[in-house]
Amino acid sequence: MSDLLWQKPGVRVDERIQRFCAGDDVILDREFFLFDIQASIAHAEGLQQIDILARDELEAIKRELAVLADDFSSGRFVLDATYEDGHSAIEARLVERLGDAGRRIHTGRSRNDQVLVATRLWLKHRLARLAKLCTESAAVALERAGVEAMLPLPGYTHMQRAVVSSAGMWWTAWAEGFIDNAERARQTLSWVDANPLGTAAGYGVNLPLAREYTTQALGFGRTQVSATYAQLSRGKFELAAIDALASAVLDLRRLAWDLSLFTSAEFGFVRLPAEYTTGSSIMPNKRNPDVIELMRASYASVAAGRAEIEQLLSLPSGYHRDLQFSKGAIFHAFGRGLAALELLPDLLRNLEWIPDAMHGALEPSMYATDLAVDMARAGMPFREAYRQAADPARWQQGDPARSLAERVSPGAAGDLGLDELRRRLALVN
Amino acid sequence: MSDLLWQKPGVRVDERIQRFCAGDDVILDREFFLFDIQASIAHAEGLQQIDILARDELEAIKRELAVLADDFSSGRFVLDATYEDGHSAIEARLVERLGDAGRRIHTGRSRNDQVLVATRLWLKHRLARLAKLCTESAAVALERAGVEAMLPLPGYTHMQRAVVSSAGMWWTAWAEGFIDNAERARQTLSWVDANPLGTAAGYGVNLPLAREYTTQALGFGRTQVSATYAQLSRGKFELAAIDALASAVLDLRRLAWDLSLFTSAEFGFVRLPAEYTTGSSIMPNKRNPDVIELMRASYASVAAGRAEIEQLLSLPSGYHRDLQFSKGAIFHAFGRGLAALELLPDLLRNLEWIPDAMHGALEPSMYATDLAVDMARAGMPFREAYRQAADPARWQQGDPARSLAERVSPGAAGDLGLDELRRRLALVN
Amino acid sequence: MSDLLWQKPGVRVDERIQRFCAGDDVILDREFFLFDIQASIAHAEGLQQIDILARDELEAIKRELAVLADDFSSGRFVLDATYEDGHSAIEARLVERLGDAGRRIHTGRSRNDQVLVATRLWLKHRLARLAKLCTESAAVALERAGVEAMLPLPGYTHMQRAVVSSAGMWWTAWAEGFIDNAERARQTLSWVDANPLGTAAGYGVNLPLAREYTTQALGFGRTQVSATYAQLSRGKFELAAIDALASAVLDLRRLAWDLSLFTSAEFGFVRLPAEYTTGSSIMPNKRNPDVIELMRASYASVAAGRAEIEQLLSLPSGYHRDLQFSKGAIFHAFGRGLAALELLPDLLRNLEWIPDAMHGALEPSMYATDLAVDMARAGMPFREAYRQAADPARWQQGDPARSLAERVSPGAAGDLGLDELRRRLALVN
Amino acid sequence: MSDLLWQKPGVRVDERIQRFCAGDDVILDREFFLFDIQASIAHAEGLQQIDILARDELEAIKRELAVLADDFSSGRFVLDATYEDGHSAIEARLVERLGDAGRRIHTGRSRNDQVLVATRLWLKHRLARLAKLCTESAAVALERAGVEAMLPLPGYTHMQRAVVSSAGMWWTAWAEGFIDNAERARQTLSWVDANPLGTAAGYGVNLPLAREYTTQALGFGRTQVSATYAQLSRGKFELAAIDALASAVLDLRRLAWDLSLFTSAEFGFVRLPAEYTTGSSIMPNKRNPDVIELMRASYASVAAGRAEIEQLLSLPSGYHRDLQFSKGAIFHAFGRGLAALELLPDLLRNLEWIPDAMHGALEPSMYATDLAVDMARAGMPFREAYRQAADPARWQQGDPARSLAERVSPGAAGDLGLDELRRRLALVN
Repeated sequence: MSDLLWQKPGVRVDERIQRFCAGDDVILDREFFLFDIQASIAHAEGLQQIDILARDELEAIKRELAVLADDFSSGRFVLDATYEDGHSAIEARLVERLGDAGRRIHTGRSRNDQVLVATRLWLKHRLARLAKLCTESAAVALERAGVEAMLPLPGYTHMQRAVVSSAGMWWTAWAEGFIDNAERARQTLSWVDANPLGTAAGYGVNLPLAREYTTQALGFGRTQVSATYAQLSRGKFELAAIDALASAVLDLRRLAWDLSLFTSAEFGFVRLPAEYTTGSSIMPNKRNPDVIELMRASYASVAAGRAEIEQLLSLPSGYHRDLQFSKGAIFHAFGRGLAALELLPDLLRNLEWIPDAMHGALEPSMYATDLAVDMARAGMPFREAYRQAADPARWQQGDPARSLAERVSPGAAGDLGLDELRRRLALVN
Repeated sequence: MSDLLWQKPGVRVDERIQRFCAGDDVILDREFFLFDIQASIAHAEGLQQIDILARDELEAIKRELAVLADDFSSGRFVLDATYEDGHSAIEARLVERLGDAGRRIHTGRSRNDQVLVATRLWLKHRLARLAKLCTESAAVALERAGVEAMLPLPGYTHMQRAVVSSAGMWWTAWAEGFIDNAERARQTLSWVDANPLGTAAGYGVNLPLAREYTTQALGFGRTQVSATYAQLSRGKFELAAIDALASAVLDLRRLAWDLSLFTSAEFGFVRLPAEYTTGSSIMPNKRNPDVIELMRASYASVAAGRAEIEQLLSLPSGYHRDLQFSKGAIFHAFGRGLAALELLPDLLRNLEWIPDAMHGALEPSMYATDLAVDMARAGMPFREAYRQAADPARWQQGDPARSLAERVSPGAAGDLGLDELRRRLALVN
Repeated sequence: MSDLLWQKPGVRVDERIQRFCAGDDVILDREFFLFDIQASIAHAEGLQQIDILARDELEAIKRELAVLADDFSSGRFVLDATYEDGHSAIEARLVERLGDAGRRIHTGRSRNDQVLVATRLWLKHRLARLAKLCTESAAVALERAGVEAMLPLPGYTHMQRAVVSSAGMWWTAWAEGFIDNAERARQTLSWVDANPLGTAAGYGVNLPLAREYTTQALGFGRTQVSATYAQLSRGKFELAAIDALASAVLDLRRLAWDLSLFTSAEFGFVRLPAEYTTGSSIMPNKRNPDVIELMRASYASVAAGRAEIEQLLSLPSGYHRDLQFSKGAIFHAFGRGLAALELLPDLLRNLEWIPDAMHGALEPSMYATDLAVDMARAGMPFREAYRQAADPARWQQGDPARSLAERVSPGAAGDLGLDELRRRLALVN
Repeated sequence: MSDLLWQKPGVRVDERIQRFCAGDDVILDREFFLFDIQASIAHAEGLQQIDILARDELEAIKRELAVLADDFSSGRFVLDATYEDGHSAIEARLVERLGDAGRRIHTGRSRNDQVLVATRLWLKHRLARLAKLCTESAAVALERAGVEAMLPLPGYTHMQRAVVSSAGMWWTAWAEGFIDNAERARQTLSWVDANPLGTAAGYGVNLPLAREYTTQALGFGRTQVSATYAQLSRGKFELAAIDALASAVLDLRRLAWDLSLFTSAEFGFVRLPAEYTTGSSIMPNKRNPDVIELMRASYASVAAGRAEIEQLLSLPSGYHRDLQFSKGAIFHAFGRGLAALELLPDLLRNLEWIPDAMHGALEPSMYATDLAVDMARAGMPFREAYRQAADPARWQQGDPARSLAERVSPGAAGDLGLDELRRRLALVN
């Protein structure tokens, strides 16, 4: 590791301890190095406004940071264990190239607000992507709901055949679910959209930092006012972002469960394109739907990231090094969660129903509820109608198309409410 | 347990199994029995609009449900293990008192949407209470921030003395934190504000249920459109509500940590009124701040409730009995979480600072950062100023009042930003 | 609440705060009130040995505690909110009935070690029950494995039909699983089998307490030596117990998943007796396997209890009131977990296979692996044999009996290894 | 990615899907590549015993695997994304170098039991390391307990000064704690010490695999009998290992909390060598105990790994691709957990007490409990003695040495029980 900029002279360094403290931190910093550079530019501009940096120093810093960003993106600069972390790498580069101008960049800021602002920008970026993937998924589901509105599908409760349902109802469920998820991603994005830059180590500095300026320059919706709260929000805002992600990935887990069942030989309602399946190393006959299993499993990684941060945050106010571990946690959660969601719109587009199998699974008992309600509509008290309809002798194969058409309660097959959902989707898009 | 309304004839009943299935479900149902009654009234009104109930039947049902609500509230009616659950208790009462009118109440609905709507109303109620407690806490913090803006308090990072901070900065942190928490509670309330009633067992019914009417009558912000999604949202919406609660209780955990330290003999910055402390059974000398420890611990219960629901929801779509366990989970989480928050505004009002101790903990090193920044402002590159200010020979006792007054970066002691926070608080209130 | 024995005079009492601190603690204490009494007797005996109690005082105390235990068991004494907790209820009763002898019972002990020892005895009791239920379940599975060794059952991976399996292989899996679970319960029981009584508030007392005596008298395997560690083990030992429980309930969750699939119409391999199923409030046709769904869901409650304790334990050493919440957590986890396991042996006994359906689900592709291995045995390199056997043209319906008989790798259908499992079961029983 | 050995011809490959399925799997496989090779050798030996491999083929395979292990260790062979996973890399190498002999290596095994056996060996290795680190830590604590038995240290409950304690009592607590943790690691190691190799995809094969032989060759304590259970134990055994790790790291979290307080200026009881501290980027005065904060935080990573696996395991029996994510989870948990524990023995050795500060924190009230017990010993009922000793007028500064010497309840300062702990440590070592 290079000489630390803030290393005290005469302190013996213990290799094992340093390695433990560093961990994989600098590797993780690659994830938001570009955001760190972006925030550093805004910070430098702010410093120039309060005359800490001369105009030409600012220009030099901006130029060098642009070069560094470029070098990083192209692989000419590698952020590795020769640096303590991404923050010191930026400062070291500026000092090396610019001398005193570089030595001024850290005026009025701490690594504490530097990591906060870079993480915040990263979270915003990920939440926007989350919202996008949710609306895309909802759009596919909504379109197929319209096309396959009346394709009969058995409806289950308790994994038992219950009543006649339809592909339309199934699609509509996911459409509304992912509209909600997109909305939550947007709400959360707006909630975390607060600029922590300029709060230093949580107690501010004796400089009139241009915080409103950096808020604008970085595109934040508001300034996070309290310097001390900025530190308290570390982990808290990450959790909120993961919560929004978890909501979507939880729905994905349930969707993947449906598909795991529907692609089994026993259900056999769905066919996945071959590229969604893989072989076995020992069983020559297998085509396994690994993709949907890993989608289902992705929730576990989101939950793990959440658990990690939650466990850290039993702390008094003020920064504590414990918080370092929140970085890996958000990368793991969003890494796995978004990777799974990225495949969702296409999966929804590409899955094929097998209508014969779906039809074949409709049995007479599944019309008993319709029958009971019919009798109730005709005047019989429902509880009595229920009793009569419970007699298997009265069950007979019905016409699924008619059953679906007559299911007119709003949100059921006969009245799917797609227009209302289209309206909500347009609003959140 | 009473005869089940939907019991099949001739099925042998196993006591142990029934007890296992019932669990404490009917006891938990007490929590939202009144909401269940409220939703039953709306459902009955809807049934009358589509001519399933005659007008006089509706009136009779409404009258009986009002009596039942009254009996329940006054203790004349006890919801206990003689009923399978709260839902069947309502139907049983109506059948017993009204005969056929009672036998019609369940037309077009399932216990599935009944429990969904009652839980939803309960969640809305709790989220509103959460928001209220957050704004109350923020208001107290904001007021004390103004009054004690310049009272010096040591600022810590890593539990080590760092720089001079102030009671004002500390209060402002919690003020902004609880404003954010209130905002999140409101966002979440609006997100879950969707009426599931009229979706039956997740597949709708062959009746044109008056869902828009019940949405209005029950005060929901929107109708949850898809019948199948209504089932998918069980647990999902509960998690969102717990997430919002957790955000506030997490801040409370950290606040309680501060107070746990500050009330220790070693810190000694805060005195709690005697009623916040309790004695020991063996040590005659003890006055323990149990209240703040239990406040801190309350997060564990919120996390437990969250974990319970999250673990349940690895399921295909459609209702599964597993979901029953989500009820106890939200009661536990909100029960413990809100109980702790209920005490927060008064605790914040009542805690007393001990200025001598706070002042006594300010040491010369805590002005080193001010000094480095001063030198940087005077033109020395910060990294060099930092090096010079790191020399203990240069540290000297400073004037905390001046240090705080000069800490003018927005959000620090010299510029707390209380007006902006008051503005945000007013918006969320 | 009654006057507290250790209440300081002149302290204003705040009802809301007291209620918050008390919570449901005294209700939870009912769970281990009898263990508390048992430990109090041992403690009193120890006090008599070091002459704190006179012999007749000891006899009086033992007599009164026996009466109290009896009153509690018969319902004549109700532990309710008139007491702060079970511990003070015991002392209060002794003071009330015996005067000074009662006032001596708490000599040398704290509620801290009192709750520790009672909880420890409770945990041991529950772990023993856990071990018993696991061996009972394993015994049933082992017996049915022998009887149904060769009943063909499709074997799945990725929910896809893979190779021919058998009921025998399925039963053997659960048998070995629950033998392991029983062994872990026994290991854990031995690990937690340490007596904390006599450690007071974590720092011992200036009395030569007869700790070895109480260890023996209460049937502990060892004395927990360090007074300070006794406090540190609060929660830690509870977690270990829950971990052992979780291992068994996790297997139960997977077993319940199998049965949830196998009892679906699509698989149709298993029939549950009618008493394991329940009806629907709206769908007259339904018979739902609620029992196995709640068994599956029970893991969530175990996980919740675990999460609650884990979240509490981010604390320095020494007792903290936070730990109070660990009580409800173990009751919830063991309450739900053991309730589910209690039904398991009978469920395993009572479930019926539907051989025709199982047989009907065996398809030609499921013999492809046997074929590839056959070719490999005959000399063809396996990877080539695999390639050839992957050709659907080569798949043909096989004889499941023969496939199973030839599956002679140890632990497969042709060599189930039941004797070895019987041997291990006998050892753990 | 290289051509998959089991790729079906004619299946279109989708890059994004393949990347999603692969994830970081092959990178993770580096962790147990050597164990995979070791198990492959045992498997090959077993195949030779049943005449699937000729003796010279076996020798060639063993030679090549030794070369591969060597190449891997030296960096000549890099396991990267050109391979699907470590398992296929091994097979590919053997095929490439040996032709048909290589094509035979996979006879009778599946990647399922291959990953199981490699993971199992890895877990055993890590658990042994865990046990070692726990006994080492306990040994240091035990030694310092002897040396510093009578060094006074304030004893706290509720973070409030309670009674006089000692460094000896503090050290003894951690000694006993880590002896327990070592014992649990050993118990767990023995519990997971079961060989899954030879169970193929969970249903065995039509070959008399030499499972007893591989059990012996790989040093397993027993054969995991049931082929189907082997699959069910995936994740279950990982959780047990993490549970044992968590027990130790939980104690570490609490120890780190103590040190975090003790190294604060307010407590000031402990001085850490400079190499355990780091500076601040902005505050020139800071020396932060980052190491102990990251030690404390490590529990969060262990908990995250546990949560990830637990969330995955809501599955029916049989292999599912979801389980792939359990790999990263154990690496994360053991990686972070063991890294922290590796530093513990030295930290315990190196921390220095600051006796003046410890002594200075002892105040008169801390002798009140001794006083009350003294009066009780003299005949006064304890509850009355407690009342009298609660009067601050009676509190006076005492002699800590005497207080400690008279604290003779077993396990307290006057009778630490070190011999018994030395005995237990020797047994577990």
